[in-house]
Amino acid sequence: MRVYGFSCCPCGWRGCTRLLRGLVRVFPPEELTIIGNTGDDFELYGLHISPDLDIVIYTLAGIVDEAKGWGLAGDTFNCLGMLERLGFETWFKLGDRDLATHVTRTKMLRDGLTLAQATAKLCRRLNVKVRLVPMSNNPVRTKILTEEFCLDFQEYFVKRRTKDEVKGMVFEDSDKAEPTIGLVDAIRNAERVAICPSNPVLSVAPILSVQAIRQAIMKTEARVVDVSPIVGGKAIRGPADRVMASLGFEASTFGVAKYYGDLLDHLIIDKIDEKDRSRIESLGVEVSVEDSVMRCIEDSVRLATTVMTE
Amino acid sequence: MRVYGFSCCPCGWRGCTRLLRGLVRVFPPEELTIIGNTGDDFELYGLHISPDLDIVIYTLAGIVDEAKGWGLAGDTFNCLGMLERLGFETWFKLGDRDLATHVTRTKMLRDGLTLAQATAKLCRRLNVKVRLVPMSNNPVRTKILTEEFCLDFQEYFVKRRTKDEVKGMVFEDSDKAEPTIGLVDAIRNAERVAICPSNPVLSVAPILSVQAIRQAIMKTEARVVDVSPIVGGKAIRGPADRVMASLGFEASTFGVAKYYGDLLDHLIIDKIDEKDRSRIESLGVEVSVEDSVMRCIEDSVRLATTVMTE
Repeated sequence: MRVYGFSCCPCGWRGCTRLLRGLVRVFPPEELTIIGNTGDDFELYGLHISPDLDIVIYTLAGIVDEAKGWGLAGDTFNCLGMLERLGFETWFKLGDRDLATHVTRTKMLRDGLTLAQATAKLCRRLNVKVRLVPMSNNPVRTKILTEEFCLDFQEYFVKRRTKDEVKGMVFEDSDKAEPTIGLVDAIRNAERVAICPSNPVLSVAPILSVQAIRQAIMKTEARVVDVSPIVGGKAIRGPADRVMASLGFEASTFGVAKYYGDLLDHLIIDKIDEKDRSRIESLGVEVSVEDSVMRCIEDSVRLATTVMTE
Repeated sequence: MRVYGFSCCPCGWRGCTRLLRGLVRVFPPEELTIIGNTGDDFELYGLHISPDLDIVIYTLAGIVDEAKGWGLAGDTFNCLGMLERLGFETWFKLGDRDLATHVTRTKMLRDGLTLAQATAKLCRRLNVKVRLVPMSNNPVRTKILTEEFCLDFQEYFVKRRTKDEVKGMVFEDSDKAEPTIGLVDAIRNAERVAICPSNPVLSVAPILSVQAIRQAIMKTEARVVDVSPIVGGKAIRGPADRVMASLGFEASTFGVAKYYGDLLDHLIIDKIDEKDRSRIESLGVEVSVEDSVMRCIEDSVRLATTVMTE
């Protein structure tokens, strides 16, 4: 059986990486294609940083900082301390080991590799066997609109700690972005398309803003399954509930289903949200009710099995 | 009194930085111009590294690793460990804090600053008040010719630990290199030109390979004083004695005077080399005999005073 996963891993969301950890236990990693969100990518100190791709790589390489959910376990921050002394802002917490990834990726890009090629190389070097593919080799940048500002994603998310009320988003240059080669075919030929439990409006939306990807997901015969990132009206982590509400979506599993609309075939919700079932089904979306909060690897494996087989 | 120093600080040589430490105690640092050798510069992991400029900056900022004579005190090497895991060679020991300098300089250069501008900025940010000037903003690269290879300087010096017999050197593109703006004037108007105790053939020679700098030193009315890097027929550190010998120069204070030829007015030698005095004087070079090995800051101050006043 060949299974293709569709995913995205925004900085700070752990639901996504926890499900991925389950997926690679349930299926041979070689059979999984993971689409990474690059809307959060940015340049810092002249280095190209792809936070979402890195979280996937570090997680699947088994070197992620479990407590924080990002960065490398046991990392130090001495370079950052010196950068501060050299006059730079240092709100983005770049660890010393982590920095090696950014230095390497930046060098690969300057040497003429595409982001997809650089990502594949990094995966090989860290023995990560899934096919992790950035949504596009072209830059797409998520901009957050607030009452006063147009913020870069990392400014909103890390520097300002999501304190601003989000009035809208722009996925800059997504209209010019081509999906990475092979991605549309992977979705077309997938046996299942899984949307990991991530912020729909901030982290899945940039991927779907690449029209050819959205179209491929609309048209694929594979079942499109999402695990709701909203549980009991709250995001398990991060501002998904607040952002959905401020954008006029209900901060609930129903709101998630409504947001994805025709794209979605099946939504997995937590037992606590059983009450939403009939409203979601009225949208033409099938529902499974599960313990959907992943606290340990066994939870991840169980949920991954549901996602891929139900 | 305005005093301009001429100097160079090759990776691993400490005589040079020890004298510099004395110079900035004896004279207001603002009155010193230091010419840095950039023949050792190279690119590593996509970063521009200027080892000699960095040693000067770190020394005068008081943050150099005293024991090693390069890098930053108390630095860690976690990024390097990760770079190794990512498949890179790691023989050049880049510390985590040190890396911040290279990342910063590389960004400045990519943003369009010249190496001189980037150096000045780094100095300001670390509160280094001397005017440290790379010999040229144009790349000049020291290549080491051995029986079998043409090695980059760092390959010869760090990777292969100076084990190869040096048959010759090439200062690549020095014929196209312009001296940094203001440098020729600084030498012309200098009250004294000091050559710090560095390897004449590997570390001072690249600076002199820029013809306009050599000419300016030849023509300046300032006294040109060198502290011999050879003491008792040996280099205090590094391969200067071996390299001079393999290139056909006597590995002695006389050999040093002979190498500099007409450029030099005055050579400071150690008491142990008193026997060479008359041979050196026969070349038309004045001689001072001193304890020239700097073991503590008092030695540095005493020698700096001799260099600038004798």
